[in-house]
Amino acid sequence: MSPSAYRIAVFGGGGAHAPLETWARETGRRIALAGALLLCGGREGVMAAAAEGVRAAGGTSLGILPGKNREESPPNPHIDIPLFTGLGQGRNLVLALSADAAIAIGGGWGTLSEIALARKHGCPVVLLASWRLTDPNGKEPDDLIHAQTPKDAVAAALAAAEKRRQSQDRRKGK
Amino acid sequence: MSPSAYRIAVFGGGGAHAPLETWARETGRRIALAGALLLCGGREGVMAAAAEGVRAAGGTSLGILPGKNREESPPNPHIDIPLFTGLGQGRNLVLALSADAAIAIGGGWGTLSEIALARKHGCPVVLLASWRLTDPNGKEPDDLIHAQTPKDAVAAALAAAEKRRQSQDRRKGK
Amino acid sequence: MSPSAYRIAVFGGGGAHAPLETWARETGRRIALAGALLLCGGREGVMAAAAEGVRAAGGTSLGILPGKNREESPPNPHIDIPLFTGLGQGRNLVLALSADAAIAIGGGWGTLSEIALARKHGCPVVLLASWRLTDPNGKEPDDLIHAQTPKDAVAAALAAAEKRRQSQDRRKGK
Amino acid sequence: MSPSAYRIAVFGGGGAHAPLETWARETGRRIALAGALLLCGGREGVMAAAAEGVRAAGGTSLGILPGKNREESPPNPHIDIPLFTGLGQGRNLVLALSADAAIAIGGGWGTLSEIALARKHGCPVVLLASWRLTDPNGKEPDDLIHAQTPKDAVAAALAAAEKRRQSQDRRKGK
Repeated sequence: MSPSAYRIAVFGGGGAHAPLETWARETGRRIALAGALLLCGGREGVMAAAAEGVRAAGGTSLGILPGKNREESPPNPHIDIPLFTGLGQGRNLVLALSADAAIAIGGGWGTLSEIALARKHGCPVVLLASWRLTDPNGKEPDDLIHAQTPKDAVAAALAAAEKRRQSQDRRKGK
Repeated sequence: MSPSAYRIAVFGGGGAHAPLETWARETGRRIALAGALLLCGGREGVMAAAAEGVRAAGGTSLGILPGKNREESPPNPHIDIPLFTGLGQGRNLVLALSADAAIAIGGGWGTLSEIALARKHGCPVVLLASWRLTDPNGKEPDDLIHAQTPKDAVAAALAAAEKRRQSQDRRKGK
Repeated sequence: MSPSAYRIAVFGGGGAHAPLETWARETGRRIALAGALLLCGGREGVMAAAAEGVRAAGGTSLGILPGKNREESPPNPHIDIPLFTGLGQGRNLVLALSADAAIAIGGGWGTLSEIALARKHGCPVVLLASWRLTDPNGKEPDDLIHAQTPKDAVAAALAAAEKRRQSQDRRKGK
Repeated sequence: MSPSAYRIAVFGGGGAHAPLETWARETGRRIALAGALLLCGGREGVMAAAAEGVRAAGGTSLGILPGKNREESPPNPHIDIPLFTGLGQGRNLVLALSADAAIAIGGGWGTLSEIALARKHGCPVVLLASWRLTDPNGKEPDDLIHAQTPKDAVAAALAAAEKRRQSQDRRKGK
């Protein structure tokens, strides 16, 4: 795993239905084929399907789990590197801060908190069959990226991650 | 402060404009008049206005701050009990878990993460000039409460807090 | 509760034996008589005894609990304001950062982590029948305060809290 | 990186002196040669030296950083996978919970909190020129492992990690 590989998070629920899981698997596959590392919450549903797609394509996945240990938060069987946080949904912040860009697939309240924490900290978010938001001023936030397919979502996430790194490098005067 | 007093959180941004602050002040005032404790993020904007309203009405406010100390996160001058977490936006989870009910006033991405974390954990949320949400199934979540005035927001939050405590007591077989 | 009241934390285990609990009760009583607010982990043993002493003296106690809710982390019956963090032992950091000074009474590994996190962030720590430490250079850390009785421990904690506030005020140019 | 690879944490300070860094480098090298993954806090001193040793031996290191981003917490240049937590010293809990076993090299208060949090949660800890502890009963905790050289420390950590996994597998009825 090269240190310069992009880290792409997939946000999504633990109890997703089959079509979303198919999309998550394809999303994971494309993240791995692009040479990026998958970050996810490490549990079932969308998270497991994304990690399964990564493994099928020979990539690496990192699962950032809510519980204190394997008994409290069993990682799904496709996770390569499980990390236990003991922080519950506080682990969503670690996902949001560690990713170069994120893709939200479907999702419930936990996923919405990940989307919000990511945007709060400048992490680009691509939405795939996920929440739609209207801010207190009655506007859709113009800094969310909408995609219609896993292929488009991964392409958009990688482009956003690249743009973000370039801007970070400029700030450091590289 | 009686241990049975309700704890009502006010979620909201640090850079709110004047009309929202007027509403936040009135919200805080009504929380205090009802004998409830205010929980908030302890910073400026909506948080400071809510705490100011609480103090004007002789109540007590608790500010759960993002930073490690007073230098990193100065509490606004109306906070009675400041707590420093050093968790950044991770402190939003503490607010969401500690409140019996919450009122979101306006707000940006941080506020949205608080709304999502609260709902994830069963804390009732009243929205006042705040985000509007459409879930991945295209529906507005039916477990959010909409209010048009501070008066209605506080009444709705207190009613929801009372209902939640009764349901918790029933589960404990009281 | 005046905003300028000192916040004194009591660190200690959930399964303490009777003599330590007697000391914790007396420590809590003296914290309350001094007009300070008690911060503790909110659970049983030393934490419950300290809160019991506070209540007997008409003071206020705040319990910062590890679990997500009352079912997961029942506060002991003497806590006035329970806060739920969902962070497990991560809540020890909130205690260490929020206290003006801390008193460790007995304790196991959790208490030791609280002592260490407090010292890491400049919070004075008074040890009462607690851990003894020798640093990697073979020296006892000279910034720990040793006390032999609850009376001495509370006096030392209050003196250290006052000295710390004065130094913070000087830094702010007050 | 095989999912079954052991995850060995190195705890240690950011401002270590040269002899400790030599030991940390050798510790990292031996962790990598054993096919294990290094977890560390991602900063300077002992953490950087351990990661440098890992890289020299062709291994993989994961840095769990205190800050929100690269600007706030620059990872040392030898880290392969940086994760940003925004939790400050709260990230010590993630290290303690995610490691199969840990080696503490020298260290200050932050390292002591890592040792305590690891032991609180059943993670074996090997001490190498680090803290010496006497519990409130006047006894040295008998569940700490003492090593005199990096070679012995890594061998002891791997043996403890293996024993712990076997015990976890037995509990799951494998």
